[in-house]
Amino acid sequence: MKIAVVHGPNLNLLGTREPEVYGRATLEDVNAAVAELAAELGVEVTSFQSNHEGGLIDHVHAAAAGVDGFMVNAGAYTHTSIALADALAGVARPYVEVHLSNVFAREPFRHRSWLAAGAVGVISGFGVDSYRLGLRALVENIKRKVPGA
Amino acid sequence: MKIAVVHGPNLNLLGTREPEVYGRATLEDVNAAVAELAAELGVEVTSFQSNHEGGLIDHVHAAAAGVDGFMVNAGAYTHTSIALADALAGVARPYVEVHLSNVFAREPFRHRSWLAAGAVGVISGFGVDSYRLGLRALVENIKRKVPGA
Amino acid sequence: MKIAVVHGPNLNLLGTREPEVYGRATLEDVNAAVAELAAELGVEVTSFQSNHEGGLIDHVHAAAAGVDGFMVNAGAYTHTSIALADALAGVARPYVEVHLSNVFAREPFRHRSWLAAGAVGVISGFGVDSYRLGLRALVENIKRKVPGA
Amino acid sequence: MKIAVVHGPNLNLLGTREPEVYGRATLEDVNAAVAELAAELGVEVTSFQSNHEGGLIDHVHAAAAGVDGFMVNAGAYTHTSIALADALAGVARPYVEVHLSNVFAREPFRHRSWLAAGAVGVISGFGVDSYRLGLRALVENIKRKVPGA
Amino acid sequence: MKIAVVHGPNLNLLGTREPEVYGRATLEDVNAAVAELAAELGVEVTSFQSNHEGGLIDHVHAAAAGVDGFMVNAGAYTHTSIALADALAGVARPYVEVHLSNVFAREPFRHRSWLAAGAVGVISGFGVDSYRLGLRALVENIKRKVPGA
Amino acid sequence: MKIAVVHGPNLNLLGTREPEVYGRATLEDVNAAVAELAAELGVEVTSFQSNHEGGLIDHVHAAAAGVDGFMVNAGAYTHTSIALADALAGVARPYVEVHLSNVFAREPFRHRSWLAAGAVGVISGFGVDSYRLGLRALVENIKRKVPGA
Amino acid sequence: MKIAVVHGPNLNLLGTREPEVYGRATLEDVNAAVAELAAELGVEVTSFQSNHEGGLIDHVHAAAAGVDGFMVNAGAYTHTSIALADALAGVARPYVEVHLSNVFAREPFRHRSWLAAGAVGVISGFGVDSYRLGLRALVENIKRKVPGA
Amino acid sequence: MKIAVVHGPNLNLLGTREPEVYGRATLEDVNAAVAELAAELGVEVTSFQSNHEGGLIDHVHAAAAGVDGFMVNAGAYTHTSIALADALAGVARPYVEVHLSNVFAREPFRHRSWLAAGAVGVISGFGVDSYRLGLRALVENIKRKVPGA
Amino acid sequence: MKIAVVHGPNLNLLGTREPEVYGRATLEDVNAAVAELAAELGVEVTSFQSNHEGGLIDHVHAAAAGVDGFMVNAGAYTHTSIALADALAGVARPYVEVHLSNVFAREPFRHRSWLAAGAVGVISGFGVDSYRLGLRALVENIKRKVPGA
Amino acid sequence: MKIAVVHGPNLNLLGTREPEVYGRATLEDVNAAVAELAAELGVEVTSFQSNHEGGLIDHVHAAAAGVDGFMVNAGAYTHTSIALADALAGVARPYVEVHLSNVFAREPFRHRSWLAAGAVGVISGFGVDSYRLGLRALVENIKRKVPGA
Amino acid sequence: MKIAVVHGPNLNLLGTREPEVYGRATLEDVNAAVAELAAELGVEVTSFQSNHEGGLIDHVHAAAAGVDGFMVNAGAYTHTSIALADALAGVARPYVEVHLSNVFAREPFRHRSWLAAGAVGVISGFGVDSYRLGLRALVENIKRKVPGA
Amino acid sequence: MKIAVVHGPNLNLLGTREPEVYGRATLEDVNAAVAELAAELGVEVTSFQSNHEGGLIDHVHAAAAGVDGFMVNAGAYTHTSIALADALAGVARPYVEVHLSNVFAREPFRHRSWLAAGAVGVISGFGVDSYRLGLRALVENIKRKVPGA
Repeated sequence: MKIAVVHGPNLNLLGTREPEVYGRATLEDVNAAVAELAAELGVEVTSFQSNHEGGLIDHVHAAAAGVDGFMVNAGAYTHTSIALADALAGVARPYVEVHLSNVFAREPFRHRSWLAAGAVGVISGFGVDSYRLGLRALVENIKRKVPGA
Repeated sequence: MKIAVVHGPNLNLLGTREPEVYGRATLEDVNAAVAELAAELGVEVTSFQSNHEGGLIDHVHAAAAGVDGFMVNAGAYTHTSIALADALAGVARPYVEVHLSNVFAREPFRHRSWLAAGAVGVISGFGVDSYRLGLRALVENIKRKVPGA
Repeated sequence: MKIAVVHGPNLNLLGTREPEVYGRATLEDVNAAVAELAAELGVEVTSFQSNHEGGLIDHVHAAAAGVDGFMVNAGAYTHTSIALADALAGVARPYVEVHLSNVFAREPFRHRSWLAAGAVGVISGFGVDSYRLGLRALVENIKRKVPGA
Repeated sequence: MKIAVVHGPNLNLLGTREPEVYGRATLEDVNAAVAELAAELGVEVTSFQSNHEGGLIDHVHAAAAGVDGFMVNAGAYTHTSIALADALAGVARPYVEVHLSNVFAREPFRHRSWLAAGAVGVISGFGVDSYRLGLRALVENIKRKVPGA
Repeated sequence: MKIAVVHGPNLNLLGTREPEVYGRATLEDVNAAVAELAAELGVEVTSFQSNHEGGLIDHVHAAAAGVDGFMVNAGAYTHTSIALADALAGVARPYVEVHLSNVFAREPFRHRSWLAAGAVGVISGFGVDSYRLGLRALVENIKRKVPGA
Repeated sequence: MKIAVVHGPNLNLLGTREPEVYGRATLEDVNAAVAELAAELGVEVTSFQSNHEGGLIDHVHAAAAGVDGFMVNAGAYTHTSIALADALAGVARPYVEVHLSNVFAREPFRHRSWLAAGAVGVISGFGVDSYRLGLRALVENIKRKVPGA
Repeated sequence: MKIAVVHGPNLNLLGTREPEVYGRATLEDVNAAVAELAAELGVEVTSFQSNHEGGLIDHVHAAAAGVDGFMVNAGAYTHTSIALADALAGVARPYVEVHLSNVFAREPFRHRSWLAAGAVGVISGFGVDSYRLGLRALVENIKRKVPGA
Repeated sequence: MKIAVVHGPNLNLLGTREPEVYGRATLEDVNAAVAELAAELGVEVTSFQSNHEGGLIDHVHAAAAGVDGFMVNAGAYTHTSIALADALAGVARPYVEVHLSNVFAREPFRHRSWLAAGAVGVISGFGVDSYRLGLRALVENIKRKVPGA
Repeated sequence: MKIAVVHGPNLNLLGTREPEVYGRATLEDVNAAVAELAAELGVEVTSFQSNHEGGLIDHVHAAAAGVDGFMVNAGAYTHTSIALADALAGVARPYVEVHLSNVFAREPFRHRSWLAAGAVGVISGFGVDSYRLGLRALVENIKRKVPGA
Repeated sequence: MKIAVVHGPNLNLLGTREPEVYGRATLEDVNAAVAELAAELGVEVTSFQSNHEGGLIDHVHAAAAGVDGFMVNAGAYTHTSIALADALAGVARPYVEVHLSNVFAREPFRHRSWLAAGAVGVISGFGVDSYRLGLRALVENIKRKVPGA
Repeated sequence: MKIAVVHGPNLNLLGTREPEVYGRATLEDVNAAVAELAAELGVEVTSFQSNHEGGLIDHVHAAAAGVDGFMVNAGAYTHTSIALADALAGVARPYVEVHLSNVFAREPFRHRSWLAAGAVGVISGFGVDSYRLGLRALVENIKRKVPGA
Repeated sequence: MKIAVVHGPNLNLLGTREPEVYGRATLEDVNAAVAELAAELGVEVTSFQSNHEGGLIDHVHAAAAGVDGFMVNAGAYTHTSIALADALAGVARPYVEVHLSNVFAREPFRHRSWLAAGAVGVISGFGVDSYRLGLRALVENIKRKVPGA
């Protein structure tokens, strides 16, 4: 099984950006944590970050054929990008939406997600654990549909 | 570490109620799955279900002193009960909000949660796995704050 | 055929509560009128009243297996209880929503019903006759689906 | 006692129009069902259909002096015609609003009725039975106000 | 193939009414242009204009059996007539919505169309060409569904 | 100078319809009062009433060429008819909007007028005097633009 | 009979302020026109202008005992002053609301009037004639209530 | 004179729950303070707390016959319970709404009260003093209506 | 301790203005009642009324240095004056908001207060008693913060 | 005459993406169809697709000088990109907005277009024909303004 | 060149009022800073402060004839005074809107300005520098329109 | 001190794009004007323009370490880009928001800025001077915080 992890805008700043909101782990730390769990679960993961809405869409298109699902933290594009939601719907792969911070405890504009309605599910608020939990959730979801995948 | 699992209205119907939305696992199945993981993680769990908003509040009050945190699936009260949110804030224990179905893929009135702003985080859409993931998330969260708890 | 009549909050006050709005018949009078028509139509009816949202949900769950349908006057919970609507959807029995007063001629917040979308139909404004008409409507509806029921 | 039944736009299509929504009875069937019950109840009924908002208003004006009440299914004008509501208020006769389909289970714009606030009551969702129930309701309502009418 | 062209309120004023908005072509010019293209495409067209919402509905009902589709410029009724939309849905013929002016460049209340959701498609802003394009679009659409029609 | 007075839906009921709102003068009384003042001011007036939105539009179209302006009490169509507003704009004659009752002291939906933005001005609340004042206002307005008209 | 004319903020600028909106007549011209018609109608008028919301309220309080009614052009306070509306309601004298320009043809925020609901009626859009018509309307209104006043 | 004091959800937590918002007095302290003032004013008070909306309604029904008025702090049900407001209206006793914290200085959803419109008045923000002031206010209000009560 | 009582627009009309809403006590009566209680409580009070928003602001500025707190009934400015709220915040003295009538039982625009969020608390609906209760509340509030003040 | 066709995000997926919504034609098919008609009409077309909002803006800037107009299917950016609308306005070339699906029959957020107000017109719902019709419409529009172009 | 600086309500409190929001400079300091820069730029400035909306309007009227433009910090009237905006529009002088604090970083009601649409421009958030920058901006703006002014 | 000037989408068109809105200065002219003033103030400036939201974010990230603050004219992204606002917050440098045109005098959607709440302040409406004033403002702001910077 192969999973593509997609990180949206400003997530490259992780560790330095508003650490009281996003924690002190860097994006490398997040990717390492995900990779460690992936190894444990016996799945492959790739990781991609872009600050470009179009870059994220390009990546979803390009990666889709080779993966069983996506784990997406679209950052602020979560709240503004219909195009990214369309891209994920267009490639027809299951995806999980994750957030480091609890978006529902923040400004009202962060409560609306264009991606959530098409996702398998949403995990928000557990820092790096959101990614770990999201990977578990996605892998389980795919396994159930495609036993042995 | 001790965790109280709180199930809200209509969750006693699980397994028979709209299985295309909520799955075929019964509430006993859910509790068993949680208990199994709890054993694995070395934590204690209790489980409580009520169709009464006031019953859930009473339980949160009564259980709080003896637990390190709550995992709450408040069902429809998620969307209407300020009183339950106040109860959880009032007892000052960390809690995780979980949902079997992906509430963000359903009717708009299910997108608003009175509980989410006060929660550590939210997990929605993974069936019984939402509870399993929620337990992991809550245990990790408590451990980090109280090492050794 | 068996029908469960469900009366919501404050309907126990009938006859004394704001008689210019709700009329002078007591809840016993309403139940008697329903029973009389039920006898005439050859169907059984039970009747239940509670001021507790959870009590109404408990009753819907408990009664469902033994009845062919529900006639529900949820009183003020009509306008606030998603949980009761979920309960009725969860037990998968046809139900008719009735109101003594014409809710559409009253305050705007009484125009919205959480129950109406899942009901067979709605009858509002005819005093005790709303229940009589509701019983006829429900019995006819069930008969058509299950000839001979 | 004399009752005028008023059918609004597109009801002449009944039986052919979206039968999954409106059923297979034609307008003649509806009128026959109403006439049969009227005979049983000992009241006279007239029936009128128009696709013209102004035609319905003209009819309400013209018929009012000779009738004790109206039963109105204003179709889509229910949701857009303040003028028809004013006409019914202007002639000062009691009226019942009926709908074949359960308008509250359909698009949100069908939930608002300009006529409902001035009606004795509303009956929605029971197919041809909505008319039968509406006739009973109206006749009872008039009888109570004018005993012997 | 036979197409009914339906013109709504005030379109009889074409050529004299606000020519800076609607152009200088008269309704006869529009009909002639449509007829010319119809001849070229080998289809029959009829044309009907009314300032009466009910008149337009009557016409849709009456014409439906004899035509393969409708091209509708409902004028201001586009924005206010649920009844006309219901009529078009009721007769179950494909229809194209056309406008002379670009309604999206005008007042906000002209941006909402009750007809658009049920239409094959919408063409707005090209003057008489909107009708020409609409005829092409409708004829193509019908041909694809009923080859040889 | 020639003025067309246009009365909308339900105004034919004047004198009998809700006299506490609209007064006891009949439409004939209104027309006579207008005619009397017209004679005094040396202008001609015609009068037309219809309950049909399309009938009012037809009349505006037909009358426009022969008149210098319109005085319009569109009744409930004031609040719902974009088509009538378009008709008045389309014929490019000055018009005054009048109402017997003070629409701003009534239900909120009567505060919005589709006609007011295109009118010379609005007069509301003075019973039959609204028409008298409206005639004076319109005649003065036309005179100023076309001295000697 | 005695009438107090009340002019609100910026009306002292009349004649120089945005003449394309408000015309070229000065406030003195308006007052002279009103006085001339008052003489003709046999009533007394006083005139008061202030740019102060509180000044207008003080004046309404002070003038009320000595007058039979008010004619008020509250300028921009029309749209913002609940206090002035309360003052006019508090002194319990009939008043007419007038505007030089047609406020309904201007910015949406000028469509809402805090004063209109309590007024006898509203006249808007006729320049200085709005005042003349308002005086006629008010005098007629008072005469009808207090014959011989 | 007899007064029933009604405490809503989570008020049993007083003293421990968010003391920076609600203060350090326990519910017993509040009841003692009320009782002390009641003695001083020569009136009897009873006190009841429940976390159940239905429990509060049951209590209002049961207590009403024996009391002259209610003092109600409905906690979070203030903002969500139409049923409790209906109960208080249904028993037709004067009541005062009180809050420990100043609800208008907190989240917007705490600014709306379903109970306030039916209350004699509202007192919010003075901690335990809100109850003391509320008792004085209610006693005075009842005395004025029923001298000697 | 010294308290400044501030009365807003139209309160000088008390006793004559809409007595069914505001009661028959004059402003002098209110001030006398407040003074009597102040004497009893051993505090000094001053009283000021103005119909001018700016006058009230000037007074708050001028009085602030010499007083321990304000009791404010801002009348209609409660609902429109951000400037008065800013003035009270600017002088940094505790204040209580009082209303004679229950503003929450009146028009919706009277439910919003610009002053309430900055106040210690709000008292509404008890006639002259609102002032008496407000004085008690304010004095207690100040005493607790500044023992011996 | 030269026309630039601009395709927005996810249109590169055409043929594989949700074919029940967008059809089975690929973007190459669309471009070929457009090219074929262009040849027939004697105009040149270029074609450009990007998933990048900024890429589309760059292209509009770069292409503008060499073309007579644009045909734009901005995909999801239709609903979110003010910047692209500004770009098209900035280069001052006529453009036509086209959509494969009927956006008005889909989710409400697809009914709003930032581009439509500045367009010559809009064509939506005809699959590949939307492009063909759009090209005809644009060419006609340009020809009329610049005869011989 | 002559510039009138207008300060609105509560700005006389500067230096003492909420210094964490507005800084510690007094109004005299602000005026001195403006005067110093004015001298440097070779323009004359006057300064006026009032807490009265009407006082500010009076001043704008009176000062307009003698000045080339206004610099206005309307304080809270920025958000509530249509009358002041009308006054500035009425005197037809260019004006710049300035604020000490960044109003867009404060409560939402401070984001709306009635004055901004008519201003040359807006400067917000730079403390005393907002005035200095505003003066530069206004002087430049006037110079460009009236070279040599 | 070093300042990064950031220009958003379409600003590369300056001088040719809608000159009646944006003026005739090109982006080079703007940069030259800024550079000239920077030299005068003794600070360094860099300048960057992109039509890509992601490009602007990338630049903010890359430039942040080397600069003391940003001056940002985000063009249309001002109104749609939460991601750019997050980027500026993430790098924790003071920034000033500037606009050539007075956005508050344009379409309502240009009144909302996602960037303004995090900015030191906002300057809008002064053409190239907006940049000059913004540079002065930013330099002053930074100097005050870091004397000698």
